[in-house]
Amino acid sequence: MKDSAVLLIDCPDRKGLVARVSNLLYERGANILHADQHQDHALGLFFMRVEWALDGGPEVAGVGHESGSHAGERFDLDGFREAFAPLAADLDMRWNLTASAPRPRMALFCSRYLHCVADLLDRWRSGELACEIPLIVSNHSEVKGLAEFYGIPFEFVEAGEGRREEAEARQLELLERERIDLVVLARYMQILSPGFVGRYPARIINVHHSFLPAFTGATPYHAAHARGVKLIGATSHYVTEVLDDGPIIEQDVARISHRDQVEDLVARGRDLERIVLSRAVRWHLDRRILCYGNKTVVFD
Amino acid sequence: MKDSAVLLIDCPDRKGLVARVSNLLYERGANILHADQHQDHALGLFFMRVEWALDGGPEVAGVGHESGSHAGERFDLDGFREAFAPLAADLDMRWNLTASAPRPRMALFCSRYLHCVADLLDRWRSGELACEIPLIVSNHSEVKGLAEFYGIPFEFVEAGEGRREEAEARQLELLERERIDLVVLARYMQILSPGFVGRYPARIINVHHSFLPAFTGATPYHAAHARGVKLIGATSHYVTEVLDDGPIIEQDVARISHRDQVEDLVARGRDLERIVLSRAVRWHLDRRILCYGNKTVVFD
Amino acid sequence: MKDSAVLLIDCPDRKGLVARVSNLLYERGANILHADQHQDHALGLFFMRVEWALDGGPEVAGVGHESGSHAGERFDLDGFREAFAPLAADLDMRWNLTASAPRPRMALFCSRYLHCVADLLDRWRSGELACEIPLIVSNHSEVKGLAEFYGIPFEFVEAGEGRREEAEARQLELLERERIDLVVLARYMQILSPGFVGRYPARIINVHHSFLPAFTGATPYHAAHARGVKLIGATSHYVTEVLDDGPIIEQDVARISHRDQVEDLVARGRDLERIVLSRAVRWHLDRRILCYGNKTVVFD
Amino acid sequence: MKDSAVLLIDCPDRKGLVARVSNLLYERGANILHADQHQDHALGLFFMRVEWALDGGPEVAGVGHESGSHAGERFDLDGFREAFAPLAADLDMRWNLTASAPRPRMALFCSRYLHCVADLLDRWRSGELACEIPLIVSNHSEVKGLAEFYGIPFEFVEAGEGRREEAEARQLELLERERIDLVVLARYMQILSPGFVGRYPARIINVHHSFLPAFTGATPYHAAHARGVKLIGATSHYVTEVLDDGPIIEQDVARISHRDQVEDLVARGRDLERIVLSRAVRWHLDRRILCYGNKTVVFD
Repeated sequence: MKDSAVLLIDCPDRKGLVARVSNLLYERGANILHADQHQDHALGLFFMRVEWALDGGPEVAGVGHESGSHAGERFDLDGFREAFAPLAADLDMRWNLTASAPRPRMALFCSRYLHCVADLLDRWRSGELACEIPLIVSNHSEVKGLAEFYGIPFEFVEAGEGRREEAEARQLELLERERIDLVVLARYMQILSPGFVGRYPARIINVHHSFLPAFTGATPYHAAHARGVKLIGATSHYVTEVLDDGPIIEQDVARISHRDQVEDLVARGRDLERIVLSRAVRWHLDRRILCYGNKTVVFD
Repeated sequence: MKDSAVLLIDCPDRKGLVARVSNLLYERGANILHADQHQDHALGLFFMRVEWALDGGPEVAGVGHESGSHAGERFDLDGFREAFAPLAADLDMRWNLTASAPRPRMALFCSRYLHCVADLLDRWRSGELACEIPLIVSNHSEVKGLAEFYGIPFEFVEAGEGRREEAEARQLELLERERIDLVVLARYMQILSPGFVGRYPARIINVHHSFLPAFTGATPYHAAHARGVKLIGATSHYVTEVLDDGPIIEQDVARISHRDQVEDLVARGRDLERIVLSRAVRWHLDRRILCYGNKTVVFD
Repeated sequence: MKDSAVLLIDCPDRKGLVARVSNLLYERGANILHADQHQDHALGLFFMRVEWALDGGPEVAGVGHESGSHAGERFDLDGFREAFAPLAADLDMRWNLTASAPRPRMALFCSRYLHCVADLLDRWRSGELACEIPLIVSNHSEVKGLAEFYGIPFEFVEAGEGRREEAEARQLELLERERIDLVVLARYMQILSPGFVGRYPARIINVHHSFLPAFTGATPYHAAHARGVKLIGATSHYVTEVLDDGPIIEQDVARISHRDQVEDLVARGRDLERIVLSRAVRWHLDRRILCYGNKTVVFD
Repeated sequence: MKDSAVLLIDCPDRKGLVARVSNLLYERGANILHADQHQDHALGLFFMRVEWALDGGPEVAGVGHESGSHAGERFDLDGFREAFAPLAADLDMRWNLTASAPRPRMALFCSRYLHCVADLLDRWRSGELACEIPLIVSNHSEVKGLAEFYGIPFEFVEAGEGRREEAEARQLELLERERIDLVVLARYMQILSPGFVGRYPARIINVHHSFLPAFTGATPYHAAHARGVKLIGATSHYVTEVLDDGPIIEQDVARISHRDQVEDLVARGRDLERIVLSRAVRWHLDRRILCYGNKTVVFD
């Protein structure tokens, strides 16, 4: 597990931004692991992600460090935060500074289709996802055994027609109790209210089983089959108030042919859904994603 | 150049279809090169494509042919057609029987964007496309030099606002004069009238620069950029009366990122457009495509 | 679950093969679900796969069946087998006739990397794989909990240096006891002896974590990283006596960049391994694969 | 056409590298368009690419520039070079500073297969490739008409067995006369001597028609067909003394099936060759590529 800090920045573009940020990091002895910038020239915006070691990192062989910090000495994150705040204010930056510990807390919402949740849990066990998973919520009980196997508390919350208000109240209670940072809708199949969504802005990730914006709504594989497309897709995105319209994080497609019936599309699509959802979750946890407008910057 | 015949069939599904067709071919001594069937179980439809040699083909070493025809003897296509017609009528078949010679005659329509037409011409020269190209039509003159280089007559036909009727009259005249079998809109950028389209059913192929049905209409790359998709696409399809709604022949996509501006999408998209259009044209010329409803069967 | 029979054929190519096979099926009242042929013109070989319903199938609406069999009457598979045998002998056919019931019995071999075995088990539970799984074998105990969760007997068989003979003797005993039809090496990491392999020709499927024939051997991701390739791959294949050299069933690749270290390749590769192995297993179980020479025909 | 400068750097990794480079650029008033870094932690190396405007660029609306330079004032590239040199020396940097004008001069070498050269020329005409093309060399005359059409001098230089020394002498003479910066082997099919290659280190780009390192040598499509792979590939790379072993720039693959004969692979492969070669050329011309060891960093 990497012991690092990540700083995400977006602000109006101007000269000297990289210099000022990298100078401050240099002065405070940061050992930068990755840095990436992006400019949206049309909108005049600047985006940056910097990741640096917190544990001082190994000495690079044969290279004398010029900074005042010594290898092995822990980076002073609080000190940096204090020093950075006035700079950020001066440059109109929106910014977010996080450390890899403590790990973020993720809740999984699912229905009776378990391929996405099973895939995320297997990845989590193998160390691919840097988070805690203290909660699985479903309006079906199929996931119970899986939750037990991975040792994760499962909460059954009845949902569906006429019950949304009640269901969401209970879900929000659970999310707060577990101090959840990220909600992942792993084929949850229920529409969340604007009120719910507004509580977790850019912190609810959904997977939609089509190549958005094609085939929004409830039965995209049927619609794809009826239209006779030659590729099917899946899309992971942040949930916003407008259904299937939030910032897209990742998409992928698979080739199909005239031989494939709707049930074949459903089966092929499961592989796409697993992949686009798991990538989105990993990137979010690695703090690689910046939202702006209705789009995302996903840093490499 | 293969010397072969292709039979395309679609009809209501029932038992014994393959047996009856393959028996007739066997009786008449056909050396089958490829055969493929497809059933749409939901609609109760049967589709078949058979290709066989017309030149008798080489003897397969060490295998005595049991049929009455001798290797090297030319297949009697007219005789087959006569024998097949009553069978087809009996089984409610729509069918189409063509030989590789004479080669179909293709016209290219283009505007000032020449990447698709240049690509098709290069493929044609290299022998990838089994057709004649006796005509290139454009409402711009940029293509003139290219047409000359490949030795293909170029006709300038002014089009655009207020001129469609006049332009189409001239175009139809040219298509008839040149006995055109297939019209390829290689980024032609003009909308054809229902009357024009009705004259060439399933014989006009267009390339649309998006992953249909997403982003129909005039500026799909702008729309894709605005929506923040992570893949862009291109689609080749037969033209019908409804814009961007005809049977899809082929689609492909390419990955993009937040770094790509609209002009980058346009550049990346050119590769997709070339590929999906050239595949559609080749498959049509190889008589691999059957339309039904608003969809296509593309035999391997 | 489909109730069907599949006939796989390969033989020297000659005229009339399709006619003779489809006539026999027609005479006996088969309702063909899928049929596909392939010819290798260079080698003069013919390959065919036919699948037909065993339960008589539904009447196609409005179509009178001409054969003697009545809808709803069960297809007489033994009778067909008897009638087909002399025809096959006459035409020098190698052939294989199987019904969907009873389902084939699959054993999973794995090591401590569980992503492939977890993926296969999840697909099996969701009904994607038409088989029984009566046995999981490993030389590590990590898989125990997973096996229990899915209710599958787990056998620990110590393997590794100096123990192969003993290990294989025990494994063969287990395979025989459980009447195993297919062995899947889900990242098993041990090399099987020619003797073992010879007992299950074209019935042991392995996944190799490279795009074969590049990077054979033990550490392909390290080798790929050292060579600086821009795509990594994975390959599923039947196991033969020669390491990493058996008939390839499926391959896939993923894009990487200079940013990816060996551990990133390993993580990305897991997705490829899951996908190429699960496809190979499904196609084998659906009897879509024919081996010839050192290659496979995979019928659509 | 962008009016910009690009600085490529590689050096031993140490703290403060980004800060020192970006400070100098800031002090001299550079308007940075793109910046990207990469660290190879295993080797302790640092790589950077910075691109900035030379024409001063437009004022970003509403943002006061803090530097001394005024918008619209041309960036002093020579002054920067002088100021940067001692810094680079101090930090053990290998570096390369280029401006977009004058445009690099590219020579195309080809044989009788013209799909790659035709593709590059069409892209060049459409403005995709920022270079001059003052020379096409071939040991066949098929390219003559194409060269004329694009108005590019064509030189026939006989090559082949027993003539390499003579041929290369003439080719080097032409390259020098035309002050060529980049040689592109667009399916040239002749092996260059180490002496020739040594004259243009990391400045000769070749396309090999396989997914390297699989299938090196003369007939990769035949080898791929014989092995029964399910994907074919193509690779663009810098030429080094060892055949098919130079730093890989780009690779891509396409799916094939048992139906595809060698000639189908050749046809499908042409699309791959065009794409991987044209990307490599474009990235080289955009100065996105850094070679180290036997690998490349390709900045986004």
